[in-house]
Amino acid sequence: MQFSFSISELIEICTPIETIGATQRSITGLASLKQAGPGDLSFLTAKRYRAAVAECAATVVLVPDDFDGEPREDQVFLRVANPSRALGLICAQLERLLWPRPRPGVHPSAVVHETARLGKDVIVGPLVVIEAGAAVGDRSWIEAGAFLGRAVMVGDDCRLGPGCRVLAECAVGNRCLLHPGVVIGSDGFGYDSSAKGHEKLPQVGTVTVGNDVEIGANSTIDRGRFAATSIGDGTKIDNLVQIGHNCVVGRHCILCSQVGLAGSTTLEDFVVAAGQVGFAGHLTVGSGSMLAGRTAIYSDHPAGSKLKGDPPLPLHQAQRVAVLMKRLPELFGRVDDLERRVLTGD
Amino acid sequence: MQFSFSISELIEICTPIETIGATQRSITGLASLKQAGPGDLSFLTAKRYRAAVAECAATVVLVPDDFDGEPREDQVFLRVANPSRALGLICAQLERLLWPRPRPGVHPSAVVHETARLGKDVIVGPLVVIEAGAAVGDRSWIEAGAFLGRAVMVGDDCRLGPGCRVLAECAVGNRCLLHPGVVIGSDGFGYDSSAKGHEKLPQVGTVTVGNDVEIGANSTIDRGRFAATSIGDGTKIDNLVQIGHNCVVGRHCILCSQVGLAGSTTLEDFVVAAGQVGFAGHLTVGSGSMLAGRTAIYSDHPAGSKLKGDPPLPLHQAQRVAVLMKRLPELFGRVDDLERRVLTGD
Amino acid sequence: MQFSFSISELIEICTPIETIGATQRSITGLASLKQAGPGDLSFLTAKRYRAAVAECAATVVLVPDDFDGEPREDQVFLRVANPSRALGLICAQLERLLWPRPRPGVHPSAVVHETARLGKDVIVGPLVVIEAGAAVGDRSWIEAGAFLGRAVMVGDDCRLGPGCRVLAECAVGNRCLLHPGVVIGSDGFGYDSSAKGHEKLPQVGTVTVGNDVEIGANSTIDRGRFAATSIGDGTKIDNLVQIGHNCVVGRHCILCSQVGLAGSTTLEDFVVAAGQVGFAGHLTVGSGSMLAGRTAIYSDHPAGSKLKGDPPLPLHQAQRVAVLMKRLPELFGRVDDLERRVLTGD
Repeated sequence: MQFSFSISELIEICTPIETIGATQRSITGLASLKQAGPGDLSFLTAKRYRAAVAECAATVVLVPDDFDGEPREDQVFLRVANPSRALGLICAQLERLLWPRPRPGVHPSAVVHETARLGKDVIVGPLVVIEAGAAVGDRSWIEAGAFLGRAVMVGDDCRLGPGCRVLAECAVGNRCLLHPGVVIGSDGFGYDSSAKGHEKLPQVGTVTVGNDVEIGANSTIDRGRFAATSIGDGTKIDNLVQIGHNCVVGRHCILCSQVGLAGSTTLEDFVVAAGQVGFAGHLTVGSGSMLAGRTAIYSDHPAGSKLKGDPPLPLHQAQRVAVLMKRLPELFGRVDDLERRVLTGD
Repeated sequence: MQFSFSISELIEICTPIETIGATQRSITGLASLKQAGPGDLSFLTAKRYRAAVAECAATVVLVPDDFDGEPREDQVFLRVANPSRALGLICAQLERLLWPRPRPGVHPSAVVHETARLGKDVIVGPLVVIEAGAAVGDRSWIEAGAFLGRAVMVGDDCRLGPGCRVLAECAVGNRCLLHPGVVIGSDGFGYDSSAKGHEKLPQVGTVTVGNDVEIGANSTIDRGRFAATSIGDGTKIDNLVQIGHNCVVGRHCILCSQVGLAGSTTLEDFVVAAGQVGFAGHLTVGSGSMLAGRTAIYSDHPAGSKLKGDPPLPLHQAQRVAVLMKRLPELFGRVDDLERRVLTGD
Repeated sequence: MQFSFSISELIEICTPIETIGATQRSITGLASLKQAGPGDLSFLTAKRYRAAVAECAATVVLVPDDFDGEPREDQVFLRVANPSRALGLICAQLERLLWPRPRPGVHPSAVVHETARLGKDVIVGPLVVIEAGAAVGDRSWIEAGAFLGRAVMVGDDCRLGPGCRVLAECAVGNRCLLHPGVVIGSDGFGYDSSAKGHEKLPQVGTVTVGNDVEIGANSTIDRGRFAATSIGDGTKIDNLVQIGHNCVVGRHCILCSQVGLAGSTTLEDFVVAAGQVGFAGHLTVGSGSMLAGRTAIYSDHPAGSKLKGDPPLPLHQAQRVAVLMKRLPELFGRVDDLERRVLTGD
């Protein structure tokens, strides 16, 4: 993004212990030690990268207080107690520039039902639709084109990106961040099938999203058949993820992009599923389990499982099997050879 | 969702043969025999769960007329001719509460072209856009923020969820349900590629969606290159499904979430594809075929195929191969051992 | 789509060398030689299909100037120098009918910030939102319900479909085509995780999309953490594709539907990834590489790699392993047999 910080502005943000070197240049970018160039700010946040500072072309480098290198000409080192924290302060400043908070209030183009309740300092962007009986908590920001259906509850300090859609009766907790195109509360996928076709089973449950949940762009969470599909506090969901009806996702789970959960599956707390993992329905994966990218889960797995592959195997075993699969042509050859020897008595 | 039925309201809906027991409590939830608690209504719809009724904590249980158990205190059994049907009547009532039908008419914030034709009792929600020459059949409900492009045809009794987008010239049949974020009629993905790059092949076909089709949230169906991509009557498509240009999906197919069809692929009638199944292009899968989750289809398969895996194998064989894959380390060890014995004459 | 060309209109578009035969019929469809029927136009664009012309039921067939067959009754052959080029001219005409360009200007229902800059002959459709400081280049067409965030730059001659969302500070080049529901600039998926949960890492980078890029419906591209996620000139991206933060996709790549790239992955120029391919993060795939459908990429691969499968193997080897996997039951049986013979001395 476009920004410009002078050294004195950076000093004000980071309050360094010491400023070493000088430059007239402004900072207009952020980058790692290896990728930074003139005009960038960089940072030494892990000891193992110390050597990279000497090679770094950044104009400003945040270094820890025990770092004793010297900047080159036209380069500044800011010695701070905790470079990660200083970087966080700068990023927080940038976030405010990137997403300047509009004034509270309802944009005149928004269509907000008279029975909807809006908390203190709520922002309702242009062309938002909020239906009857919906409620939005204090300071929440509903961006352009978002849709809150009948009786939807959104908590405090949430941000719903452009074009998010939360359908009737669903609830979103506090401090949630929903990216553009998220759909919450579409019908679960359930039918009574016969030779005549598929009769739709009514999906009259809801979706309950806890506090501090983030949901990525264009992800979809279906409402339960009778009960609520639920997402636990602190869980983070990436883009294009599908969560089927009646799923129960625990607290602090991580679901990476394109993960899919079929209906009625339970993930306990702190489950991590890397990209494109698929879960069949009606199963439980225990807390703290870690599933490598593309793993396919067909049955229950206990807490702490570390799985990979399709069929899913313990990580170490999966890697071994993957190596041996490549050697199948060789193995067939060896067995051919053995047979020849054994059958001919060679 | 939030609702409350008194026992007398339930009796009115279900018209039971007999009401056994009594309670003052209202019914505010629905749940299976195992999950139901006080305040819930539950149901015995399959004989094999009979024993679970005695353990069930639901306030009301729908039981068949030949069920002879007795309710506990503060619990009511409603004996009905057909518990599934009674449950259906209750759910239908709940659906009406969940999705109360707005008054017919065009919301003043909608942008409807003067040449668009709207049938009897059509509902056009807030901020909908309907372009020139589009037509919407009787009683169809176009929800907030949906988009119907030029000359789009939508049949009778459809419901298009918030933010659905049906692009120019595409047609949707009667009684279709499109969930939020569905895109119908985006360009097919076709190029004439050379060392200079990829020249776009015009995609001037359309999409034809039959009657009684349901399409899940954020799913996408591309228009044909010349002809129509088509979806047959009664087919049900889950969330985040991709259907490429020129595909022909038959009648009463089931495509679960994250399934993808490359271009020009044909599925005959009653094909079932579980989650994340992938189809290469230009192939045909015969009617009644069932593809397990994550199966990858690279070529034609006859009617009635039951496949699983990548490469796809008959279900039974796929399961056997999956088991044997896990035993590859053992097999390599056994062959090592055999070689040692055979070569040393041990 | 619905159209009607008379033979004389077709002659005007194609300027054939010779018109053979006659018909009163209008052309109302386009189809391949095999699929065409009466009322269709068909085309012989590759020599190997010559024999199919005699069987073709199309009313009009575009044939090359050295083609010497004769049309049947009520059929017309248009002999042209280059049938592909003639077909292209007809399709271009159809595209103009399919997507008639509205008059330049801003629809009165659009919400365009006073500081936004619109180029010459820009079209801003109904219910579009354009935020402060955004800029749209000459002749670009922003369709109904699209969203351009603060300081977004869109180049000349672009078309952004209904409901596209480009978030703050992101840039799109010239002649780009974004299909409905595309999200550009959602936050990257990055957290600092501990036993307490996941602390969000600010994502203050942007997305840079080059010239002549096409992005399919409901695809998502996350903004970089500090720098820009970037998509090179001429790259074509299909529907429901995910591109993680800090990815660098080169020029003229082809990413088919449901492909996913985790963060910080680099694809060099002319990489082709077929449907559902998954890339782990922090890796590089060399230019010209081709990845078959469903391939899983976990590490760097050099230019020109041709890979398939999970684990990914060179195409030829992957096909061989796929065949041998099916024969695992047989192999286990053969080893059982060998052991019996060797151990019993049979």
